[in-house]
Amino acid sequence: MFFQKEIETMPRKELEALQLAKLKETVAYCYNKVPFYHQKLTEAGVGDGSRIRQLSDVQYIPFTTKEDFRNNYPFGLNAAPMKDIVRIHASSGTTGKPTVGVYTKKDIDVWSDCVARVAVAGGVTDEDIIQISFGYGLFTGALGLHFGLEKIGATVIPASSGNTEKQMMMFRDFGVTGLVATPSYALYLSEAVKEAGYPLSDYSLRLGILGSEPCTPEMRAQIEANLGIYVSDNYGMTELGGPGVSGDCPERDGMHFAEDHFLPEIIDSATGERLREGGKGELVVTTLSRQGMPVLRYRTKDITSITYEPCPCGRTHARMSKTAGRTDDMMIIKGVNVFPTQIESVLVGMPYIGPHYQIVLRRVNFRDTLEIRVELADAELLERYQELQELQRSMHDRLKSVLGLEAKVTLVQPKTLERFQGKAKRILDLRNEPQA
Amino acid sequence: MFFQKEIETMPRKELEALQLAKLKETVAYCYNKVPFYHQKLTEAGVGDGSRIRQLSDVQYIPFTTKEDFRNNYPFGLNAAPMKDIVRIHASSGTTGKPTVGVYTKKDIDVWSDCVARVAVAGGVTDEDIIQISFGYGLFTGALGLHFGLEKIGATVIPASSGNTEKQMMMFRDFGVTGLVATPSYALYLSEAVKEAGYPLSDYSLRLGILGSEPCTPEMRAQIEANLGIYVSDNYGMTELGGPGVSGDCPERDGMHFAEDHFLPEIIDSATGERLREGGKGELVVTTLSRQGMPVLRYRTKDITSITYEPCPCGRTHARMSKTAGRTDDMMIIKGVNVFPTQIESVLVGMPYIGPHYQIVLRRVNFRDTLEIRVELADAELLERYQELQELQRSMHDRLKSVLGLEAKVTLVQPKTLERFQGKAKRILDLRNEPQA
Ligand SMILES: [Zn+2]
Ligand SMILES: [Zn+2]
Repeated sequence: MFFQKEIETMPRKELEALQLAKLKETVAYCYNKVPFYHQKLTEAGVGDGSRIRQLSDVQYIPFTTKEDFRNNYPFGLNAAPMKDIVRIHASSGTTGKPTVGVYTKKDIDVWSDCVARVAVAGGVTDEDIIQISFGYGLFTGALGLHFGLEKIGATVIPASSGNTEKQMMMFRDFGVTGLVATPSYALYLSEAVKEAGYPLSDYSLRLGILGSEPCTPEMRAQIEANLGIYVSDNYGMTELGGPGVSGDCPERDGMHFAEDHFLPEIIDSATGERLREGGKGELVVTTLSRQGMPVLRYRTKDITSITYEPCPCGRTHARMSKTAGRTDDMMIIKGVNVFPTQIESVLVGMPYIGPHYQIVLRRVNFRDTLEIRVELADAELLERYQELQELQRSMHDRLKSVLGLEAKVTLVQPKTLERFQGKAKRILDLRNEPQA
Repeated sequence: MFFQKEIETMPRKELEALQLAKLKETVAYCYNKVPFYHQKLTEAGVGDGSRIRQLSDVQYIPFTTKEDFRNNYPFGLNAAPMKDIVRIHASSGTTGKPTVGVYTKKDIDVWSDCVARVAVAGGVTDEDIIQISFGYGLFTGALGLHFGLEKIGATVIPASSGNTEKQMMMFRDFGVTGLVATPSYALYLSEAVKEAGYPLSDYSLRLGILGSEPCTPEMRAQIEANLGIYVSDNYGMTELGGPGVSGDCPERDGMHFAEDHFLPEIIDSATGERLREGGKGELVVTTLSRQGMPVLRYRTKDITSITYEPCPCGRTHARMSKTAGRTDDMMIIKGVNVFPTQIESVLVGMPYIGPHYQIVLRRVNFRDTLEIRVELADAELLERYQELQELQRSMHDRLKSVLGLEAKVTLVQPKTLERFQGKAKRILDLRNEPQA
């Protein structure tokens, strides 16, 4: 099923001609409307982009970074006058000022199309009743999915996050067929549904559209098993307008970009060089349709690869693999690159343990140590000591083989690790703390 | 300024002809699509409404009550198939199951028009930057205002409620010109703005669109003074689809109904009889355009009066006066009818006290007692005892003259009364508790 079949299955040659035309337009628009880009494009000798001849010429355009957003807070990257802006979103930065995104009416419309494509590819129809359990507000996730799903004609329940009992009551009472949530909240809800004890036949759930944080295949499998649903994943971020930049098709073998609206590249994050097709590196994206806040070559910090191979689903748009992690999240431990997702993929599906874990890094006698605190699912378990010792040993061994690192595994009592309803904060880096 | 001038200023004769035609349509639609109404209309002898000749014939239609919503939870009052429903809202009842509202695409469209009318009448233009500080989610307030304001082309910031520091930061950083909030949260924010100490010239605020709970003229005046803004009020409820049922015009002498979409009446809440024009009683509303969940003669429990007098603003649609309170909220104390709004109107604007108060009812030796707990604005104040004694006496005396009742006034330390970000719960009725 397609939301905009003609565009989603457009022959690549046509698609690339469209991208080239829109890239030239976008560069000229940025050059003319945004002093920040005007200066950077001038300095780089790209000017208004009129000399761009082919898509690969995008490499001559300077990168835009998170820091550029910070320095131009709040509206320094706006290309349209405030009169034409109908929406402002913002994501709370870990420190200080939020990252801001502004939208014209057309931006909202294009964004809703992108989200609708992802949702339809994930199986949503106008007969579905979808509960959106993302936190509503400044965050792009909830309103992004909301507008996309209403555009399809699905029934949207703006549940927002929190109040798990009420979430489950609505599942049952309203005949909810689909869930929108972060993978970690979906996992949490799915455990709660299991614990609540109603048979799955009391629910009409059949699909989940997850996003806003990475979802490992193992997490996905566990959510699918707990709720008896089919889960698809999608990708986006505030700097690029929110969710819907790319999303799973029924093959679930890479997420198709909305390539008519976004031009993706993969670079070596150390050198900034473009990698050849299939190479794993940092995703860089240029928006091709945004009016309020066009973005040239945004460095997403997400590590992935892109394929242009034809997909059996019929979509012609390029696919990105699941993000292996963010250059930000990547830990360097004793010189080894470690992503939290690698650790998660080991833990999910193991017996006795709940979905909550924490990664603790310490520096002891100038050597990094890695501890994984894993919460048990059941309070009585710590008493069954011998079995647990084996569990601990097995996790340790598997982690060692996956990471190539020694990690201490600590089992802790249920409900003792901090809970997160949005993006979970898993890493506790104490290496620069004084030693206890 | 008008959003839909032709409709808002339609000659009454035409408007009433339109209402009559839509009333007949609505009755037939309910009769044919909703078994609950089919039975009630049949029993009342109204049938499919084909014998309705004039608007006052609405009196032969049976009332719909809050209890009917409860008994038909969740979808017993739906008139459209779920396939056509694009949104579900719900308001958390104080006990048990929520009150549910469902919307077709056209319902959302009409609702957005109604909200846009209220907002434009309150001074909003497409150049405004409006921060919505209602809690987003199932509650109709936030998404209702959101869609209406985007329809006007204003810039919407979906701030949601909470995090006062961030709310104020956005006011300043984003050049916010308008605030949407409950009166009590607006008052709270306005006090916080005063305390934060930035000069009002650091803000671009010029208007407030308040709603979802009654706003007394005294509260309004204090919010206006604190923020240097113009405040307008509007009225609605989940059962009728949310905000936008009626709203202030620039005269602020009664809120104009969207009479092409709603047919209002005033009844004696004890007898159910219709009152003549200007009489004060319970507001009853019939929806004239809703597809998802049409409602016949809904008893709102709100006490008000309606005038059909021409308004200097040019709008021809009937106006309701500020609600004096809800038949629900009305307390009967020693046989006297008392509304919390009466008490509020005495407190607001008095020196030394903050916006938070609580009404405590007790029964002592079979006699009702009324205590008003009022929070002081400043912790050191309780030390200035003599002045405070006078303050207390003056509040007591003014309350006595307004209510005709003795009330004990207790001053309590700042931040010791419970805070509410949505609708404030002011009444603590302990009369059926065992005596301490
Ligand atoms: Zn595919
Ligand atoms: Zn008027």
